[in-house]
Amino acid sequence: MNIYDIIEKKKHSEVLTKDEINYFVEGYTNGTIPDYQMSALLMAICIQGLDIDETYNLTNAMLYSGDTIDLSEIKGVKVDKHSTGGVGDTTSLVLGPLVAACDLPFAKMSGRGLGHTGGTLDKLESIPGMNINLTMSDFINNTNKIKMAITGQTGDVTPADKKIYALRDTTATVDNVSLISSSIMSKKIAVDTDALILDVKVGSGAFMKNVEEAEKLSKMMVELGHKFGRRTVAVITNMDEPLGLAIGNSLEVIEAIDTLKGQGPKDLTELCLVLGAKLLVLGNKCENEEVARELLQEKITSGEALNKFKEFVRLQGGDASYIDDVNKFKLSSIKKEVYSEKEGYVKSINALGIGEASKDLGAGRETKDSILDLGSGIMLNKKIDDFVKKGDLLATIYTEKSEEIEDVTKMIIDSYDIGEKNKEAYKLIIKEIY
Amino acid sequence: MNIYDIIEKKKHSEVLTKDEINYFVEGYTNGTIPDYQMSALLMAICIQGLDIDETYNLTNAMLYSGDTIDLSEIKGVKVDKHSTGGVGDTTSLVLGPLVAACDLPFAKMSGRGLGHTGGTLDKLESIPGMNINLTMSDFINNTNKIKMAITGQTGDVTPADKKIYALRDTTATVDNVSLISSSIMSKKIAVDTDALILDVKVGSGAFMKNVEEAEKLSKMMVELGHKFGRRTVAVITNMDEPLGLAIGNSLEVIEAIDTLKGQGPKDLTELCLVLGAKLLVLGNKCENEEVARELLQEKITSGEALNKFKEFVRLQGGDASYIDDVNKFKLSSIKKEVYSEKEGYVKSINALGIGEASKDLGAGRETKDSILDLGSGIMLNKKIDDFVKKGDLLATIYTEKSEEIEDVTKMIIDSYDIGEKNKEAYKLIIKEIY
Repeated sequence: MNIYDIIEKKKHSEVLTKDEINYFVEGYTNGTIPDYQMSALLMAICIQGLDIDETYNLTNAMLYSGDTIDLSEIKGVKVDKHSTGGVGDTTSLVLGPLVAACDLPFAKMSGRGLGHTGGTLDKLESIPGMNINLTMSDFINNTNKIKMAITGQTGDVTPADKKIYALRDTTATVDNVSLISSSIMSKKIAVDTDALILDVKVGSGAFMKNVEEAEKLSKMMVELGHKFGRRTVAVITNMDEPLGLAIGNSLEVIEAIDTLKGQGPKDLTELCLVLGAKLLVLGNKCENEEVARELLQEKITSGEALNKFKEFVRLQGGDASYIDDVNKFKLSSIKKEVYSEKEGYVKSINALGIGEASKDLGAGRETKDSILDLGSGIMLNKKIDDFVKKGDLLATIYTEKSEEIEDVTKMIIDSYDIGEKNKEAYKLIIKEIY
Repeated sequence: MNIYDIIEKKKHSEVLTKDEINYFVEGYTNGTIPDYQMSALLMAICIQGLDIDETYNLTNAMLYSGDTIDLSEIKGVKVDKHSTGGVGDTTSLVLGPLVAACDLPFAKMSGRGLGHTGGTLDKLESIPGMNINLTMSDFINNTNKIKMAITGQTGDVTPADKKIYALRDTTATVDNVSLISSSIMSKKIAVDTDALILDVKVGSGAFMKNVEEAEKLSKMMVELGHKFGRRTVAVITNMDEPLGLAIGNSLEVIEAIDTLKGQGPKDLTELCLVLGAKLLVLGNKCENEEVARELLQEKITSGEALNKFKEFVRLQGGDASYIDDVNKFKLSSIKKEVYSEKEGYVKSINALGIGEASKDLGAGRETKDSILDLGSGIMLNKKIDDFVKKGDLLATIYTEKSEEIEDVTKMIIDSYDIGEKNKEAYKLIIKEIY
């Protein structure tokens, strides 16, 4: 077996065998296959595609390229959630406490934000004292104790995926359904939870720009999940505007707290209820989603969900007084309001534009080494279908970078598409894939 | 402009602009674009293709990546010939003296052999004393004096092509019509002859495995030639068996001498007459191919063609007594005959198999640094449509490598397809493209 012949096969759209896939994943990971051969193969895969068996074998090869995380000591049906990355997506911080309050163990290994998308770990660091590098035993013990823990990736999980992803990122070989699926699912399968909900974002702020692509990706990931024996459901959700009103780390934590109190934005609340209800059914806590949804709403009304969040923060070393008094969060010192230059209805809000603007203000990373300003970001004041008059407040900027304000103001104004009222109502939940 | 966006465009089968093509050729040649991005782009080009304008721009960018060779001091219509590489292809050594004897200047920069295909320079080195590294002024003066010179590439011609070809060779991105065309034509256009004949091989021993592909390549190269103002004709010729009977360096020189004497194999003689007649018409020496062919045949009969070859050898420092007495060529010491194990008609002779066998005997290069045994090779005794009995001599092996004989014997036997008589006569000249 040699890499040249494997590249040649895929160039001609032939199906690769399990051995061939193992060969190139191992060879690339251990350095015997050089970057320039791997990138040629990745491009051939991008254009010619992989079928479901090839994608399964690729996922499997990446999964076994490194450590797997044994969570068998956690009692109950352990659930996990993954989002393909959106703007203002604070869901995990609401969903975790919600399902944990229903006694469902939520054990999540999270990541950092990059580019225009945020990361749960960065958001949690807005709370002073939060330890997001738990030992494996603390991760397991905490989940057993309060049904919830969130930590950074421990161990050397899927090194093959890390190396391949870095190469894809520089060779325009990112946007292939099989490569995306195998990358996401190898990491998720490496952590042995029992059930997984996938939030697949579609729209201006997401990887997937249209529903067809998002559906392909969702089906592929759900099928992979099933092949690995994981209960898996995907929900395709709209990213034609940012989720909620807050974009930025501290701002989003405050919004999560508001949502847990029942005072959050409608779309974020709805998404958490939908995903949460599915998790409760997947985790055998409820017989159907209707019952589950009622239970979740009770946990909000009763204050149990918010208490669970405080418990979680406290157990991971964070200062829970910030949850009681959100004014304690230190926002950036420069506050600037952005006003509409048009009159009409908000037709859409380019989430990518808002995400990039927020990144420029200090809330996101340009490169892996960028240092974040956790108090920076954007609070939206208008969302899709809102009516706006000239001079109305569209959004508020928080930053320490005065030099960015002019550009960011323009980016925000440009992101708002204002005109005639949309004929169809904005649909947050687009499709569910089982 | 950046390479990522260029890769992305070609991945989506979009047309690249002249500026984009210049950008990646320059960037890759000067090292600012790394191998792994270039190989991803090459794979995208391989699968999605380039149109004629893109191919022209690529050729042009590679052409101007290095030196161009000014031959304006050569008087008359300078002609050049290129073969896409076959097995036992001694054509240049016959064609050169033939057209030069007709007063048409044949100024050829040649290459070394690699893999199963031979190179004109290696063959010439079989003649003791031959200088194949002429200075530019000797190259020009010799051509003016005797109408013929063959030398290795001088100067830094098309460095972009060299670097790109080396990458293609390891990333399974060789077999694309536009990439092959631009590679060949940039080198040919860099040397400013006036007319060019292209011998495009098709069949088991050639790059192009079928006539459709060969025709696409031929049309592309002829169109490129015309766009660069070069009189260009392509002839698609059959490589479903080796050309002539000799495969190996000294063996092929002897065969070339035989052919110049009018005693060469029928197919090699025919090909030289066809290509030569076209060159004489392209070079304004004859009004049509019929007249040209007669003139060429006269030059053989009269001995002028053979004398021209001797003149050429002498002028480039070679020992012309070898031409008078071919027994002087030192063949390898081990001589082994290969006999047929079957009875029937020769249906085809896998030229790739014979080429590989010859390489293993020492006549070809495994890598660029391999040292050749110029006296090794294979003499075929049977060709397509010959009738063969069990035990008949198929071929004779010449080598110094006794350890290779068993394998090579098998390779030769396996290369002969013997069975019922072919229904259609073997067609050497398949198609002509103007």
